[in-house]
Amino acid sequence: MATVKLWTDAEAEAHSKVKAVFDDIRATRKSDFVNNFWRGLANQPESLERVWNTLKAVMGAPGPLDPLTRELIYIAVSITNACPYCIHSHTAAARAKGMTDAQYSDFLAVVGMASQTNALVTGLQLPVDAAFLIES
Amino acid sequence: MATVKLWTDAEAEAHSKVKAVFDDIRATRKSDFVNNFWRGLANQPESLERVWNTLKAVMGAPGPLDPLTRELIYIAVSITNACPYCIHSHTAAARAKGMTDAQYSDFLAVVGMASQTNALVTGLQLPVDAAFLIES
Amino acid sequence: MATVKLWTDAEAEAHSKVKAVFDDIRATRKSDFVNNFWRGLANQPESLERVWNTLKAVMGAPGPLDPLTRELIYIAVSITNACPYCIHSHTAAARAKGMTDAQYSDFLAVVGMASQTNALVTGLQLPVDAAFLIES
Amino acid sequence: MATVKLWTDAEAEAHSKVKAVFDDIRATRKSDFVNNFWRGLANQPESLERVWNTLKAVMGAPGPLDPLTRELIYIAVSITNACPYCIHSHTAAARAKGMTDAQYSDFLAVVGMASQTNALVTGLQLPVDAAFLIES
Amino acid sequence: MATVKLWTDAEAEAHSKVKAVFDDIRATRKSDFVNNFWRGLANQPESLERVWNTLKAVMGAPGPLDPLTRELIYIAVSITNACPYCIHSHTAAARAKGMTDAQYSDFLAVVGMASQTNALVTGLQLPVDAAFLIES
Amino acid sequence: MATVKLWTDAEAEAHSKVKAVFDDIRATRKSDFVNNFWRGLANQPESLERVWNTLKAVMGAPGPLDPLTRELIYIAVSITNACPYCIHSHTAAARAKGMTDAQYSDFLAVVGMASQTNALVTGLQLPVDAAFLIES
Repeated sequence: MATVKLWTDAEAEAHSKVKAVFDDIRATRKSDFVNNFWRGLANQPESLERVWNTLKAVMGAPGPLDPLTRELIYIAVSITNACPYCIHSHTAAARAKGMTDAQYSDFLAVVGMASQTNALVTGLQLPVDAAFLIES
Repeated sequence: MATVKLWTDAEAEAHSKVKAVFDDIRATRKSDFVNNFWRGLANQPESLERVWNTLKAVMGAPGPLDPLTRELIYIAVSITNACPYCIHSHTAAARAKGMTDAQYSDFLAVVGMASQTNALVTGLQLPVDAAFLIES
Repeated sequence: MATVKLWTDAEAEAHSKVKAVFDDIRATRKSDFVNNFWRGLANQPESLERVWNTLKAVMGAPGPLDPLTRELIYIAVSITNACPYCIHSHTAAARAKGMTDAQYSDFLAVVGMASQTNALVTGLQLPVDAAFLIES
Repeated sequence: MATVKLWTDAEAEAHSKVKAVFDDIRATRKSDFVNNFWRGLANQPESLERVWNTLKAVMGAPGPLDPLTRELIYIAVSITNACPYCIHSHTAAARAKGMTDAQYSDFLAVVGMASQTNALVTGLQLPVDAAFLIES
Repeated sequence: MATVKLWTDAEAEAHSKVKAVFDDIRATRKSDFVNNFWRGLANQPESLERVWNTLKAVMGAPGPLDPLTRELIYIAVSITNACPYCIHSHTAAARAKGMTDAQYSDFLAVVGMASQTNALVTGLQLPVDAAFLIES
Repeated sequence: MATVKLWTDAEAEAHSKVKAVFDDIRATRKSDFVNNFWRGLANQPESLERVWNTLKAVMGAPGPLDPLTRELIYIAVSITNACPYCIHSHTAAARAKGMTDAQYSDFLAVVGMASQTNALVTGLQLPVDAAFLIES
């Protein structure tokens, strides 16, 4: 179904760079599960390593936004980009990080609202109010 | 510049439905400023009333997500939809609701990360892992 | 497959707000069929009620555009947003409202043409002709 | 501002293929005005000729959809693709073909509605109801 | 699964315009295989003929870009538009035209990089540097 | 105009991480020019460093795709994402790397073609031919 083969654990074990990333994914997440995204990216070991390291830094390191907020932003982008895999995997991740049904409903209402007003604004080609522009 | 005229305060005053919405915007926001989105939508009084009421309910009412988180979700959708007006107005709104520079940096890093992985996943056409699917 | 459970009729019967919306969908459409969109939205009863009421007002009320034209506009947006469910459901709705094969062919040719010229215009970054701008 | 030069009438006159297309645009539209889209495409005479001929066939020839309906579909795609030039030029074209303010309001409400429900459906990853699938 | 029936060879044989296009596809590609895109478009014989002729001219004729480069551009657009059929068919076509695994990895890294920086630039609403604008 | 200030050279000089990246941009490109993308990203020094290092690795390192092909892929994504800054900057970069007018015309014709067929395929919801799927 994918455009590339998905690497099995045995195949990953036999390639030092892929093995190192898979090991780090498992250690970081404290779980043996390695999802298809990494098994597909393994065909491109340089990208695999770079994307995993960036993901760890962006999504995993402590920072001003909490992990659930980051997941909600991630899902919002993924919905707008129409990426089913991304929506499923990050909605599952958000739930694992504590998202309640009520938060999910609130989230979807905001995404729907933004999508609607984006279309209206773009259709009307409205000029940006001076008040919204920063002085620089 | 817009595809419609932007209603002045005088024009809004003379139309009962538009006046009622503009009055409610000012009262709700405790500010005299009515931005161009509403001045453009005023050409369609039914939509103006409906969109304002929905926006108040979705973005303004207390709920499980706090106001700043809602704004970040809104901006994430607006960036992915490439809507300059929406990005400017909601980035300004996020700042007004307390977004710090550090939070904004964190936010943009997540949006960039999601956009990159969305493209990789879509390019590879990865099947969704069974672990991400809910039983229903 | 969905990120939420799809409500059965029995579950809907047991929730007063969801039941009221499902009843109104059936009465309005003069059909017992309630499609998955509403069964998924039922997890968020406030959104369910709001979206249904808006949909009834926007798509169902008599107005200057006839029902089939509205469906064609809906499908055009859904194709450009790459939403398979939306494309299937509204193409079926358009057929139910009388869309002929010849109209569908005409429609698709326009959508294809617009998509092509949108890309060319965006690639060339053409400035808008003064003649297209309204005086405001 | 564009990524290419926009051909003047004098430059078009001096190139036989471009001249032929510009002449046909003027004759077909019964107007001396040639908008920037064609002046930009003139840098690629093969594309200019092909796109113009296709546009004439798709948008100009009598068919099962009337000219205004075709323009509305065109604008719907252009809004969703976020193409300012396309939105301005085809909104102007729709007005020239008789679009009333009431029709435009109706149109925008449908585009906004579709954009909102597209996002909700995509977020929920709803399976297509069997009733919507054609037997083939 | 499609919104239209997919024409069998027998049905195509019985329609002169469709038959002519299918024959030309087979002759041009030196293969008996006619993929679903053409079997779906056959419902709209005018579009079928026009799209095939354009595709032959754009993708098939010798020109300044080689066939593989054209396929890579095609896939890049298809990924960004989130079109699974297009991604699968043109990735297969790229492989048939000689794309190596290393080229595919390189390609995907560029697509991912562009998607990320597109989002950052759009989020920041950066003004275009004067140095990038052509004088016209 | 941007949502953040664009860092001047003096401001960059005063921040060690930003200075290091700006210095490396200048050394790598053998040019004193630092474009607005980096001056905007400078507000987020971690992202600035990460994005620059990734860009250098993805776009700058020798690999199976030549520099011009990479730029064409980049522009194709940027057009489809409707990012004016990205289109201008990478079209300028492509020209600087030797793109001829004839190559640019060829490129745009492919982008237009892909955009059109993407829309047709998505509208028709065509199933992927078995022949396009890899065995895995």
